[in-house]
Amino acid sequence: MNRAQLINQIKQKGSFLCVGLDTDKNKIPPHLAAKNNPVLEFNKAIIDATKDYCVSYKINTAFYEAIGAKGWQTMEETLEYIPTTHFTIADAKRGDIGNTSDMYAQAFFKQLSFHSVTLAPYMGKDSIEPFFQYPEKWGIVLALTSNAGSTDYEQLSVGESKLYERVIKHTTTFTNDANVMFVVGATKAEELLNIRSLIPNHFLLVPGIGAQGGNLQEVAKYGINADCGLLINASRSIIYAGNGLDFAAKAAKEAQIIAAEMKTLLAEYGII
Amino acid sequence: MNRAQLINQIKQKGSFLCVGLDTDKNKIPPHLAAKNNPVLEFNKAIIDATKDYCVSYKINTAFYEAIGAKGWQTMEETLEYIPTTHFTIADAKRGDIGNTSDMYAQAFFKQLSFHSVTLAPYMGKDSIEPFFQYPEKWGIVLALTSNAGSTDYEQLSVGESKLYERVIKHTTTFTNDANVMFVVGATKAEELLNIRSLIPNHFLLVPGIGAQGGNLQEVAKYGINADCGLLINASRSIIYAGNGLDFAAKAAKEAQIIAAEMKTLLAEYGII
Repeated sequence: MNRAQLINQIKQKGSFLCVGLDTDKNKIPPHLAAKNNPVLEFNKAIIDATKDYCVSYKINTAFYEAIGAKGWQTMEETLEYIPTTHFTIADAKRGDIGNTSDMYAQAFFKQLSFHSVTLAPYMGKDSIEPFFQYPEKWGIVLALTSNAGSTDYEQLSVGESKLYERVIKHTTTFTNDANVMFVVGATKAEELLNIRSLIPNHFLLVPGIGAQGGNLQEVAKYGINADCGLLINASRSIIYAGNGLDFAAKAAKEAQIIAAEMKTLLAEYGII
Repeated sequence: MNRAQLINQIKQKGSFLCVGLDTDKNKIPPHLAAKNNPVLEFNKAIIDATKDYCVSYKINTAFYEAIGAKGWQTMEETLEYIPTTHFTIADAKRGDIGNTSDMYAQAFFKQLSFHSVTLAPYMGKDSIEPFFQYPEKWGIVLALTSNAGSTDYEQLSVGESKLYERVIKHTTTFTNDANVMFVVGATKAEELLNIRSLIPNHFLLVPGIGAQGGNLQEVAKYGINADCGLLINASRSIIYAGNGLDFAAKAAKEAQIIAAEMKTLLAEYGII
């Protein structure tokens, strides 16, 4: 999916919500346990219930790898079930030497058909560059995350920049706003202003609404741009909104509340 | 596998060689193509041929993910085929927020039975800590890698340290030499002296012998300690030593040459 198509989806739907399918087999409603593949049934129900309120789905690979080969198969089947209108993210945090990253890019862009993969930049340019060789595919590079450990390295000063600022600046020397996004933690909303001074046009993937405690208004205030430029992810707060027979309806309700708030913000900032 | 058992294997065998199973389905000998699972057949033949010369196998997850769910299954079957005497490494470069890293640890230590996983430290302490909660399992943290991109971030100065030195020092505040190793690229042998001043006792996983151009004598000179403290990986130079019917014999020959050199070095440094 290219940038124009993504922006079009956001404007049409009045939403920049990404639903995170961090599906833990131990947390899904008990009545699904008897199904042949409870995780897949759960994901399909969540997708059906939320697709009108979101523009993107993020599949957290860890939760599927924890189930082994069958989990990988479930990830494939979940991805196939997502409507083609929705931007798909493999939240995989990959990154390795060139020939290995080549293989990861093949895994997520050819063997699977994700639109994007999240990338860990520690090993530098050649460790993430292979992901940018695919037309209309995206790399989403970790910049400033929302976890406690973000102070350990990401926020260290390297010369006149912080490490995450260096990552952003360096990455933009070999990518562009049509093939790279950055992960920016919503709990650091004041940092968004600074990040927007470095990359006014890029899309940011913002986790942390819901379980990680970010604030939607603040993120929009400092992070929104003329094309919206934001994908805001919510995982646990939506997919585990309920645990009974009505879990999908409860997930829909939660997604609908966030989407309504997003629509107001998009109108307020003159984007729709 | 605990530290004493690993050291014992190294001393018994007179080798600190790790064979990297970066098995590319497009590079294996053509005569295997007719087999039901060419990658698995190749891996089994390589393991049979090299197991007497190495103490460890490193499975590069990217090469298996590129084949999809069947690849993940092949990874499981390859792991099961590795003798229990050998230290197994999932070269996966994982690392994410805590609850996700919990899932990755489950994937590699419970669903699969690897002894260790390589970890990308960018997101800080809580992103790798879940891997250190398993007895006799190891996290192998990226420090200084051998690729060109290692100058982009790893070697940047953060205060009085380089970033990779900071990673080493910080990681040792919540781990110990019985549950953490560090990845140190062999093409930077002069840096080993410095690294050994920070962590004299830890094991280092050193890629780069063979295809990446490291030098065994130099790595031993600056990196070896009283327990050996090194696992040196060779992947392509061993597993693709031949491409004909005798590929396994050629791999064995290559591994044998490296192991013989290692035995001489272990004797020279008084370890055996």
